[in-house]
Amino acid sequence: MCSASALDPEIAARLKRDEHGLFPAVAQQYDSGHVLMVGWMDDEALHQTLTTGRVTYFSRSRQSHWRKGDTSGHVQWVKEVRLDCDSDTVLVKVDQVGSACHTGARTCFDDGALVVKEPQGEPT
Amino acid sequence: MCSASALDPEIAARLKRDEHGLFPAVAQQYDSGHVLMVGWMDDEALHQTLTTGRVTYFSRSRQSHWRKGDTSGHVQWVKEVRLDCDSDTVLVKVDQVGSACHTGARTCFDDGALVVKEPQGEPT
Repeated sequence: MCSASALDPEIAARLKRDEHGLFPAVAQQYDSGHVLMVGWMDDEALHQTLTTGRVTYFSRSRQSHWRKGDTSGHVQWVKEVRLDCDSDTVLVKVDQVGSACHTGARTCFDDGALVVKEPQGEPT
Repeated sequence: MCSASALDPEIAARLKRDEHGLFPAVAQQYDSGHVLMVGWMDDEALHQTLTTGRVTYFSRSRQSHWRKGDTSGHVQWVKEVRLDCDSDTVLVKVDQVGSACHTGARTCFDDGALVVKEPQGEPT
């Protein structure tokens, strides 16, 4: 999956990928700070994301690249891309057109609150 | 890794894990919206996170659980936990004590901005 990518060699040298050549990519709405979704990228998806202005992911189920919004119109315009300290995760700040989630929800985390036993703050 | 967890069976039935029994967990500061880090969880880590008020991860390199802050003091207090639409990723809203990153930075994404070719907005 990593082969034949035009990704900047310096970035490629830093990246740490899983055994499938992939790493998680967190998409965050750049102004509101909402976490929209988590997808996966390989080198080529990151290259496309860095150079085309739109976020491209790698689908683990379909084993192919997909550019967010090509089918749905729900494009993610790239504002900023950051690697984490271990270079094994990417944070992509985007401007999301319409819904991030295929369910129609604004984010992929809108419906899934789990019961937390006594949410905590620092003890007083 | 998933065996012998006391995780709520309804949540366990929804969760989709990778071949190692793991799923990504995005930690976000609950008030500022900053994405702090991405870690990994298994069922037991999620169970601990949901029931103890502090975020617990599973370390892929050490192959063991770790409760954020036990060594560093940089505790993550759990405010809210959400599953995504595919039930294969968790978003944990936390109150981070001190630095999220082992480098001392507030977040694990503070130092890794990549060059984006002409960051895009919707064409005008």
